[in-house]
Amino acid sequence: MKVGLIQHAIASSQEKTIEKTIELIKKAKLQGAQLIVLQELHQDRYFCINEDVNFFDLANNFEKDILFWSDIAKENEVVLVTSLFEKRSAGLYHNTAVVFEKDGTIAGKYRKMHIPDDPGFYEKFYFTPGDLGYEPIQTSVGKLGLLVCWDQWYPEAARLMALRGAEMLIYPTAIGWFDEDAQDEKERQRDAWETIQRGHAISNGLPVISVNRIGKELDDKKQLDGICFWGNSFVAGPQGEILAKASNDKEEVMVIDIDLKRCEEVRRIWPFLRDRRIETYGDLTKRFID
Amino acid sequence: MKVGLIQHAIASSQEKTIEKTIELIKKAKLQGAQLIVLQELHQDRYFCINEDVNFFDLANNFEKDILFWSDIAKENEVVLVTSLFEKRSAGLYHNTAVVFEKDGTIAGKYRKMHIPDDPGFYEKFYFTPGDLGYEPIQTSVGKLGLLVCWDQWYPEAARLMALRGAEMLIYPTAIGWFDEDAQDEKERQRDAWETIQRGHAISNGLPVISVNRIGKELDDKKQLDGICFWGNSFVAGPQGEILAKASNDKEEVMVIDIDLKRCEEVRRIWPFLRDRRIETYGDLTKRFID
Repeated sequence: MKVGLIQHAIASSQEKTIEKTIELIKKAKLQGAQLIVLQELHQDRYFCINEDVNFFDLANNFEKDILFWSDIAKENEVVLVTSLFEKRSAGLYHNTAVVFEKDGTIAGKYRKMHIPDDPGFYEKFYFTPGDLGYEPIQTSVGKLGLLVCWDQWYPEAARLMALRGAEMLIYPTAIGWFDEDAQDEKERQRDAWETIQRGHAISNGLPVISVNRIGKELDDKKQLDGICFWGNSFVAGPQGEILAKASNDKEEVMVIDIDLKRCEEVRRIWPFLRDRRIETYGDLTKRFID
Repeated sequence: MKVGLIQHAIASSQEKTIEKTIELIKKAKLQGAQLIVLQELHQDRYFCINEDVNFFDLANNFEKDILFWSDIAKENEVVLVTSLFEKRSAGLYHNTAVVFEKDGTIAGKYRKMHIPDDPGFYEKFYFTPGDLGYEPIQTSVGKLGLLVCWDQWYPEAARLMALRGAEMLIYPTAIGWFDEDAQDEKERQRDAWETIQRGHAISNGLPVISVNRIGKELDDKKQLDGICFWGNSFVAGPQGEILAKASNDKEEVMVIDIDLKRCEEVRRIWPFLRDRRIETYGDLTKRFID
């Protein structure tokens, strides 16, 4: 199964960003991609960099956005993983990944479950935590364990997708550094981000596909200098081995062949699911045990 | 807090192996170690390489073993993490880590919860899965989240220790390669072993200390050629960053300074515990969701 990862920066407008994304999708298709994964909130700048009620306008066209990307999936005959800003009702928004089948039909949706809130990443202001749970999305290329960005720090989310039969884990992402951070801190952060996702691959015997944006995006409220999204989109195999990795700072289309049969082999030699002590895991539903 | 990791091979007898271990403990103490961690089942050869009822004799002296290592902890004035073969009753054995305070008193015990069974690692034959749960052990150097070997593949175990206030995760281990495995497969295995434990450090904002044995140990039943224990004992910080790592094949004493205050800093910038969706984790107690 050939997966295409599209890593890009924003252009000067939403229209131009989308134009560029479509060009990159076409390139991935030409290279044989059957599944194409876009980065988190790929239509726009990362607006969560500050809190501004005007940005809720970006969710006004959610239904139109769905029709639009449905057409793109159909035209290119690919399974397409998009990441959109969903307006569900006035005052109720989600960070929602929509997956399209090759014929443009909606294969499924995932609403981001874990929502961050850090300086420059004010997502709790914009997004209500998802209420669709951890349900893999069945497509013609496999059962996709789709999660989004901050979810990647939670082994619980990856495990629940695996227990429901996901055949791969997919993380559209928007994560970056601040220029003022020291180089060693930047490297620790990027390595941690990669390592924990490789860890999910290992503990669940599944490939992981993670797609991040690049480029520096400024904070027009000037609270922050801006965020340098660190790219490094990657694919890892079911032992956590890196199969392909993109640069920090370049627009890239990576098309990678994933051998789903290897998961079966790896799970035979490392049968972690066999030995889970499920009768001892009840306290995982507690906040903390004082 | 200075932790000492003791990575060694077995000697020609249990007595000589223990003698060597004590020498290495003294070396670690001389280098300032306040906490010393020994490898899994450090008194003996890795007898689980095959199934033989005679090996149950190795657990006959569990109470004496405790008294013995209590004396070693007291003599060296260190908190000592041992890994012993516990006979609890006829036909009932555990793989049990016993922690001693600097004065030789027992700080706590942990019975290995997740038990492997692979060719060469027939632990389900020898060990009943632990029934003490995931209870950190309070010591004068911190609250130790002690887990053992196969547990390291389970994010659930690490998380439950963190939720109960563990200040570090500790894994005595016995893991190795088979000579007949290809070099790239060996490297994937070793990297996966390190990566998943670094992942537990990251998701829980805790340091991880992992101590593995070295040396090739033969299978006297000749079902297997033997196991080459791969060493690589390491300490990772709370962002999963490697602080120190031993070789594949050398006896080593590593004494490493761990800054427990950094965990507080890291958890402030990456407050993963804040955002767990505990109301959505109930299915983690299921075997699989068909």
